[in-house]
Amino acid sequence: MSGYTIQATCELPFEDTVTAVRAELGKAGFGVITEIDLRATLRQKIGAEIPDEVILGACDPRFAHRAITADPSVAALLPCNVVVRSLSDHVTLVEAFDPGAMMRLAGSHGGLDSIAAEVGQQLRAALSSVRSGPRAGTDEAMKES
Amino acid sequence: MSGYTIQATCELPFEDTVTAVRAELGKAGFGVITEIDLRATLRQKIGAEIPDEVILGACDPRFAHRAITADPSVAALLPCNVVVRSLSDHVTLVEAFDPGAMMRLAGSHGGLDSIAAEVGQQLRAALSSVRSGPRAGTDEAMKES
Repeated sequence: MSGYTIQATCELPFEDTVTAVRAELGKAGFGVITEIDLRATLRQKIGAEIPDEVILGACDPRFAHRAITADPSVAALLPCNVVVRSLSDHVTLVEAFDPGAMMRLAGSHGGLDSIAAEVGQQLRAALSSVRSGPRAGTDEAMKES
Repeated sequence: MSGYTIQATCELPFEDTVTAVRAELGKAGFGVITEIDLRATLRQKIGAEIPDEVILGACDPRFAHRAITADPSVAALLPCNVVVRSLSDHVTLVEAFDPGAMMRLAGSHGGLDSIAAEVGQQLRAALSSVRSGPRAGTDEAMKES
């Protein structure tokens, strides 16, 4: 748990979770505009071994445009990362950067607070749908930091 | 100015600044593992017009591995974004996410404080080199937030 992420634990294998996260982000209006295979990157660059992990960069262009109009520096916090990390063969963690934490860094000027609240709500809904999808066997409440 | 970024203003056109930033990040040990053309993305997706702007995702795999070992949630803050934004034909802003701000979100456990300090020092050095490069005509002190 952390104070700056939204988390959901899914009883799905890693690859199925990545597929579900992409689908739910798309339904919620987010495009995935970057993808980093962290496991492959660390293995290739420094020979380190970690479990399966990808960082998906999610962006709703309307919110992004409103946010950088309110505060151009917010671009340094874009896109909103959604990390998918294998915990075991059938349990996968989904962990997104909490837009509310952006507020702690950037302040609430220019309507950033309402933007962060709206984006946060969309992300929570998307993660909740992944967790409770038809192939997930858990009814554990979505963990929020 | 913001409280969560490191900034440098360069008297260079946009494209030359992007080239210089990539070169200096590489010298400092950072790979650019993502690149978002924000102007093109917003134009294509929602028809919004903004000046030239790219978000470069910089990653030093050794630091990244140490950071996620200390706190797996830090993956949601990776890679370190370095934003290049055109201010005018010959003035360009370079603005990087300050790893020190990561500390404000994640705390200092597991040696994250020393990692953030080291990465921040490398980023500041890279941005300083871009600002003071052979084709930059300013001796303005690098702005730090």
